[in-house]
Amino acid sequence: MATASESKTTLPADVKAILREGAERTDAALERLLPSVSQVPISIHGAMRHSVFAGGKRLRPVLVMEAARTIASSHGGRATPDGVEDVGAAIEMLHTYSLIHDDLPALDNDDLRRGKPTCHVAFGEAIAILAGDALQTLAYQTLANLKCEPERTVEIVGLVAAATGTVEGMIGGQVLDLEGEHTKPTAESVAAIHRAKTGALIRVSIVAGGVYAGARAEDTQRLTEFGTKAGLAFQIVDDVLDMTQDSEHLGKTAGKDVASDKATWPAVFGIERSRQDAARLIAEAFTVLEPYGAAAEGLKGVARYLVDRTH
Amino acid sequence: MATASESKTTLPADVKAILREGAERTDAALERLLPSVSQVPISIHGAMRHSVFAGGKRLRPVLVMEAARTIASSHGGRATPDGVEDVGAAIEMLHTYSLIHDDLPALDNDDLRRGKPTCHVAFGEAIAILAGDALQTLAYQTLANLKCEPERTVEIVGLVAAATGTVEGMIGGQVLDLEGEHTKPTAESVAAIHRAKTGALIRVSIVAGGVYAGARAEDTQRLTEFGTKAGLAFQIVDDVLDMTQDSEHLGKTAGKDVASDKATWPAVFGIERSRQDAARLIAEAFTVLEPYGAAAEGLKGVARYLVDRTH
Repeated sequence: MATASESKTTLPADVKAILREGAERTDAALERLLPSVSQVPISIHGAMRHSVFAGGKRLRPVLVMEAARTIASSHGGRATPDGVEDVGAAIEMLHTYSLIHDDLPALDNDDLRRGKPTCHVAFGEAIAILAGDALQTLAYQTLANLKCEPERTVEIVGLVAAATGTVEGMIGGQVLDLEGEHTKPTAESVAAIHRAKTGALIRVSIVAGGVYAGARAEDTQRLTEFGTKAGLAFQIVDDVLDMTQDSEHLGKTAGKDVASDKATWPAVFGIERSRQDAARLIAEAFTVLEPYGAAAEGLKGVARYLVDRTH
Repeated sequence: MATASESKTTLPADVKAILREGAERTDAALERLLPSVSQVPISIHGAMRHSVFAGGKRLRPVLVMEAARTIASSHGGRATPDGVEDVGAAIEMLHTYSLIHDDLPALDNDDLRRGKPTCHVAFGEAIAILAGDALQTLAYQTLANLKCEPERTVEIVGLVAAATGTVEGMIGGQVLDLEGEHTKPTAESVAAIHRAKTGALIRVSIVAGGVYAGARAEDTQRLTEFGTKAGLAFQIVDDVLDMTQDSEHLGKTAGKDVASDKATWPAVFGIERSRQDAARLIAEAFTVLEPYGAAAEGLKGVARYLVDRTH
């Protein structure tokens, strides 16, 4: 009885429970790590919290935790290592900073994000720019305080910075996306943008979680391959949802990608083929995790959710 | 003969030579660390280089190197430790990112910086926002690759992030400055803004250089005290120069601080008292370095230059 219950706690079969518990653990970490709204200067702390606590699903932090659980379990541990939620919180701060800056008038000029006013609508452009900057800074401050060996912290800082930088990272993807507007997307251009703009942060969530949990070279290689495929599948599904769902369901302005001629997978390959590609990528990603057997069930369950979700 | 020449190389008496050699070493590091303008996506790499190579004096990197030399010499070494220029380059990237974002239309709306068009004037607002973001990211990627013990790298990342964050760091100072516009500055408000907005990055340049070179706890404490005083003196002199020099000499729009009712030292204390305060702070800062004797001559020389400069 005790063993069955313990096993359920360390590796829940129910993906809903993984997502809920992961989001709660992430929210608690973010609550602890972000300065309170009464901390001077108050305007920027209010703006940071407005965007961080706007109702995100914390998918990247959940991937961090499940990747950590996979590696810890396969090396003989049972649960996710202590403090791994801070890795996820740092990555969520980076994700949020990119959304705040992406929404600015000079970039996508979005008024609505997750059904709420975007940061610059609520706090003005100056504070929104600085709040994005500050979330990036706080992410690295958070990583500098991780409770793992310094070698692993340094590795995580380097991986995260590369995955969010201009060369094959998140900012590079945003620039390619901006530069490609008003020119017809090709298979190559859309793949390059997706790999960099959203894929790299999802991939590094998975790899950083593994590194935190003690990944060896072969683990890091597998998680990188798994994360690359899962990240692309995630973005393809995002593109399909943008075309097929209404704004209320998405919590953001639907159809905007098509309206602005953005590089999306369905724009190049059509909706049906896009769905097939996402399913194929996830199947391929799962085979990469076969050496971990049951230890990877949680990570696979979350990846499955990424492509099966409806918003 | 050989000894005299070697001694001159490791501790030049001539501050001009320290500044010139430090700037050259920093420029070479930045040239190596920043992606080339032919690297895709080219627009952002052009924008990053435009602002980084706009003719800055590299004062912060020089402070990094001289602080490192002080600590290395006092512990029996002679020259600045290998690779310390990358610490300075990372801090210069952070300084440049803050200037790019500060110059944006939503913030200070400046068209001219160091006599050249600001980043958003040359490359557009979207690319300028992302170029600032990317310089912050590249700074941490650079720190993650430092050639010191991982414990020291982690300490430097944490110190730098805190010094550029919202609580007593650079972004916090920018916000206080924005919030304080159009209200009369007080002694307390101007001191708090200066300590955070420019003082923290100068202080952390000095401390990070020392940590890289093997600072012990008492060294870090001394460098922190020295850097706090030198950083405030630097900003007071900057304020005085803004009021007393013309735009051509400064390479930026002079008198702008007064015009926009910004919190400056002379606005509260007058020009004469401001000059006295800067001189007093530097004198106090020098006494902190007395335990290092001749090993601190270079660092003191650069600090003296910070308050004696005319632009």
